[in-house]
Amino acid sequence: MIERIKGSAPTRSRAVVHNGLVYTVAVSSDKKPDVYLQTRLALEAITRTLSEAGSDKSHILTATMYLADMSKKDDMNRAWDEWVDRNNAPQRACIGATLEGADLIEIVITAAQK
Amino acid sequence: MIERIKGSAPTRSRAVVHNGLVYTVAVSSDKKPDVYLQTRLALEAITRTLSEAGSDKSHILTATMYLADMSKKDDMNRAWDEWVDRNNAPQRACIGATLEGADLIEIVITAAQK
Amino acid sequence: MIERIKGSAPTRSRAVVHNGLVYTVAVSSDKKPDVYLQTRLALEAITRTLSEAGSDKSHILTATMYLADMSKKDDMNRAWDEWVDRNNAPQRACIGATLEGADLIEIVITAAQK
Repeated sequence: MIERIKGSAPTRSRAVVHNGLVYTVAVSSDKKPDVYLQTRLALEAITRTLSEAGSDKSHILTATMYLADMSKKDDMNRAWDEWVDRNNAPQRACIGATLEGADLIEIVITAAQK
Repeated sequence: MIERIKGSAPTRSRAVVHNGLVYTVAVSSDKKPDVYLQTRLALEAITRTLSEAGSDKSHILTATMYLADMSKKDDMNRAWDEWVDRNNAPQRACIGATLEGADLIEIVITAAQK
Repeated sequence: MIERIKGSAPTRSRAVVHNGLVYTVAVSSDKKPDVYLQTRLALEAITRTLSEAGSDKSHILTATMYLADMSKKDDMNRAWDEWVDRNNAPQRACIGATLEGADLIEIVITAAQK
């Protein structure tokens, strides 16, 4: 009834699936100080996880973008605008917040299964 | 199955409706440096969007209030307390975060449809 | 159809239950400047609220941990790792943000009912 997809840490799941919804989170695998690159890689991780969980980017309901430096929001938006399904745009909030270590972006997604 | 209500940006939706739930976000249309005013206007935008989406404020489940300056939380609370349906109070979290430009508040809502 | 569990404030609910899901938020009852202690107490409050709402920690879907000082993330993680059900790990995001007064942690949870 609740499916959990493991990530790197034993005490958190990379994704949880329940009642037709997928809840997932991603950061960039590459920690280079480049917001565009990190956003692109975090979104690619989202694409892979949604696929594993029986969803895809056209089924995203909500996105929360936590950005370490809001002055770099344009770089994040460039990666977002290239990636997003414009016919199925999610509700999105973008928030400046302190992230861990060299993370410049953390993305939290809720999506419907296909 | 997924309904999307457009906002000002082509790559995001102002609201998404799925399986009886409405997911929406709002900021203030007026960027005057007045937290009470901006909260009031953002909440009025929420009222309008919920109405479009077949919900209303008595059906709100959760609210996340992102506030640019937590020292102004009382001003936000004043607008909230005037607006909220006290017989149907949402679960709410209030978080200090960096917002875009002159935004002093950003509000993310999940509501049930009527 | 929407059940609301009252907290200390008349204009917010401590938890809301709708369509098999529980939405809740907690801070620590003790405001000592100790992230481990505050996290432990906030998680104990979550345990109690989930029980009232017909859920438990094995049914948590998502957790958002708002931390006043990200340099203390290890202390938060210690309390989390002791508390979490490792066979049913939630999707979790941890965000550094400004919190109210002496709060060092605020936890937002979505859980399925049993």
